[in-house]
Amino acid sequence: MLTAADSAFAARLDAALPEGTLRPLTAAYQEEPRGRFHGNGGLLAAPRDTEEVARVVALCNDARVGIVPWGGGTGLVGGQILSDGPAPLILSLERMNKVEAVYPEENVLIAQAGAVLEDIHAAARARDRLFPLTLASQGSCRIGGNLATNAGGVNVLRYGNARELCLGVEAVLADGSVLRGLKRLRKDNTGYDLKDLLIGSEGSLGVITAASLKLSPIPAAEGAALMVVESPAAALTLLAMARARLGEGVSGFELIARQGLDFLAETMPELRQPFATPPDWMVLVDLGLPRGLDPQAALEELFAAGAEAGLVHDGVIAQNEAQRAEFWTLRETIPEANRKIGAISSHDISLPLGAIPDFIAEAGAALARLGEIRINCFGHLGDGNLHYNAFPAPGRDRADYEALREPVKRLVHDLVDRYDGSVSAEHGIGRLKVPDLERYGDPAKLAVMRAIKAALDPNGIMNPGAVLRA
Amino acid sequence: MLTAADSAFAARLDAALPEGTLRPLTAAYQEEPRGRFHGNGGLLAAPRDTEEVARVVALCNDARVGIVPWGGGTGLVGGQILSDGPAPLILSLERMNKVEAVYPEENVLIAQAGAVLEDIHAAARARDRLFPLTLASQGSCRIGGNLATNAGGVNVLRYGNARELCLGVEAVLADGSVLRGLKRLRKDNTGYDLKDLLIGSEGSLGVITAASLKLSPIPAAEGAALMVVESPAAALTLLAMARARLGEGVSGFELIARQGLDFLAETMPELRQPFATPPDWMVLVDLGLPRGLDPQAALEELFAAGAEAGLVHDGVIAQNEAQRAEFWTLRETIPEANRKIGAISSHDISLPLGAIPDFIAEAGAALARLGEIRINCFGHLGDGNLHYNAFPAPGRDRADYEALREPVKRLVHDLVDRYDGSVSAEHGIGRLKVPDLERYGDPAKLAVMRAIKAALDPNGIMNPGAVLRA
Repeated sequence: MLTAADSAFAARLDAALPEGTLRPLTAAYQEEPRGRFHGNGGLLAAPRDTEEVARVVALCNDARVGIVPWGGGTGLVGGQILSDGPAPLILSLERMNKVEAVYPEENVLIAQAGAVLEDIHAAARARDRLFPLTLASQGSCRIGGNLATNAGGVNVLRYGNARELCLGVEAVLADGSVLRGLKRLRKDNTGYDLKDLLIGSEGSLGVITAASLKLSPIPAAEGAALMVVESPAAALTLLAMARARLGEGVSGFELIARQGLDFLAETMPELRQPFATPPDWMVLVDLGLPRGLDPQAALEELFAAGAEAGLVHDGVIAQNEAQRAEFWTLRETIPEANRKIGAISSHDISLPLGAIPDFIAEAGAALARLGEIRINCFGHLGDGNLHYNAFPAPGRDRADYEALREPVKRLVHDLVDRYDGSVSAEHGIGRLKVPDLERYGDPAKLAVMRAIKAALDPNGIMNPGAVLRA
Repeated sequence: MLTAADSAFAARLDAALPEGTLRPLTAAYQEEPRGRFHGNGGLLAAPRDTEEVARVVALCNDARVGIVPWGGGTGLVGGQILSDGPAPLILSLERMNKVEAVYPEENVLIAQAGAVLEDIHAAARARDRLFPLTLASQGSCRIGGNLATNAGGVNVLRYGNARELCLGVEAVLADGSVLRGLKRLRKDNTGYDLKDLLIGSEGSLGVITAASLKLSPIPAAEGAALMVVESPAAALTLLAMARARLGEGVSGFELIARQGLDFLAETMPELRQPFATPPDWMVLVDLGLPRGLDPQAALEELFAAGAEAGLVHDGVIAQNEAQRAEFWTLRETIPEANRKIGAISSHDISLPLGAIPDFIAEAGAALARLGEIRINCFGHLGDGNLHYNAFPAPGRDRADYEALREPVKRLVHDLVDRYDGSVSAEHGIGRLKVPDLERYGDPAKLAVMRAIKAALDPNGIMNPGAVLRA
């Protein structure tokens, strides 16, 4: 049983930690972007270094006070908000925000967990290197949260998820001990892979305090195109064609549906649209090529080959970096348009690539039978990761659809499950998807997860109720 | 306490499993390539499918009989050999050797754990895809063993270790339950990363029975060169130069020392050597490039740039696939030459790239103070992974150096530890390096590993004594 982080506990923390560690708990720490979860109070601590984190955690463990680790607060599944039960200690990494070292010749960067993703990008760029993790929230999310949730984003196709971009972590475990794993090694087969266990555990097994990150050379030349495709199936064939020609040079391959463009036109009419008539389906193809290859020429050739194969029938190739950025802005603004429209239910799913066309057709048909629903299906097609979101009919409000929310979600997730997909591709489980994990998760996997949680956090203080029911 | 797999237990297995599951335990299952470990007998079972594996494991768990999972038997750290304690059941995956499906359009292949690595290569090639894991033992090692040990090899620089090449595993856990994780997904953030926990756990947490593997497009054009470099430091600068120009196009970057070439000349005089006078240091640069780039031209340009920077001063570019294969044969034959010479002590180490030149200089100087020792330092420079092996002086035998073996190993590993490297880069811990893990491992990491082992295998039946002391 956990106990609340009350004033007596605050006094103990105050006595054990430097002044300024405990801070006023403002509203910002009690909210999350989708407004589904609201915090139930508690204390806010912002330690300055790993040893202070360890001290805070050990005190919480002694007192059986739950800990909610806090990064940038941008998570989409409520992993950063405890709504019920004894009020927790919110442990913010915001003061541990330094990029500690960059080793360009090793393609390694060491950052504290509170470093903002964009600052990491900048530190890498300053040494002529790339840290590829790229998300809409990069101006405010922090690397500790990115790792805790194994964040994805738009460059996964080429560079992998946050997990693949991390060489090692330092973390404070539930008993206050410190796992020291900040090695700068590409290969290290000395025992169990605890780094990857902590990554994606959403703070439920420990608090990541620093990370050793993998950098990449900046591609010699970059480019992008929007290509109008006949169908999702055609998009997948085009992807295979692109990868056969250009290999890892295909950095991003994003699917955009007409519904997304319509939402953009409706909510942000000032945003320039690439085609006079929004196409049913298009893809944003992004390339980063080695020296000796010209991205525009490569995109022209890909377009020609795709056209000859009957896959694409219109397109525009970015003529410069500004236009490439414009294409990406279009893509990255879709979630904002979605928020303005107001979704009935949003789904962050992944599927075997080959199952995507059938899934899109079947899910669309089945949802149409539920009611008048608009679907915006877009996302990281190259990774099999779709943001498959359901919206009210024109002129109606999400509130009108309250009764449909669960049936819509169930329908989509059941179908994903039938195709052996995932009901959380990149956002994680948090608190929002705990019932989905229980419903669709492999029972043996859940049993192992619970056994690991019990072994590493016997008092259940680490992010109680996230990932696994408390 | 474990009990021996005796004849009474054999009778129980026989009754519960189809005829032919239990087989005669031949000498091949009691040996390992380096001859350091010898088996202490026991039973040999070769189930035909996952359900039979589960039945075997459950019976062992009930009877407290230790299980040694057996793949191709090619491991180099004794993980496949139990030498003492109650005789185990050796669980061979050899009959579960099928490639079950290839999805070229998804870049996915599903294989049973007993599939031989070379058969997986062939199945991928037949569908115009690449499975990049490449090791000297690929004709006999099995994918289950490759995953259990997180095998490395020569393509890690570009494609990652076995871990990065695996999308999901099916495994039988210590209680006989089956973890069903054969998804064909690039992104799946539904709970803890058990795949990566099992990968590299060397059979100590469960038996991998099948895997979903990540394929890649075959590069449009491939090529290789041997370049004579001034020093290891020059080799690293050349590597950075190559990656800045060609990005992921650099598939392999192997360091070869004169000592290796001398050993080849001494033990295999028939093998053609590329240079009349063996250079002190050279690198094998292997490229796999996208359409539109010519590997020979790219290698020429790299050589010219390296020469201008004073890094390289001689070289030979493969004029065709046969010559490229010859270069690789040279590299891949060095371990055989080493075996013929007979090492005092072999070390599979990794270091931060930037530390390698100093390490090589310091280790060489320190070993010279211990005695007359020849060093063959070679390997996967691009990954920071060196095979740093110590040999007797000419005309002397490894037996003369028996007393030096431990001091040599200690010296090398202590220095690796001082540089924040790893004492097992790609071979794993097995039984050989358990004391090293205890000596150099982070205490918090070891505590977590022991807690996980106790939680998932409370009776200690899974590969007892491997990775962690039984």
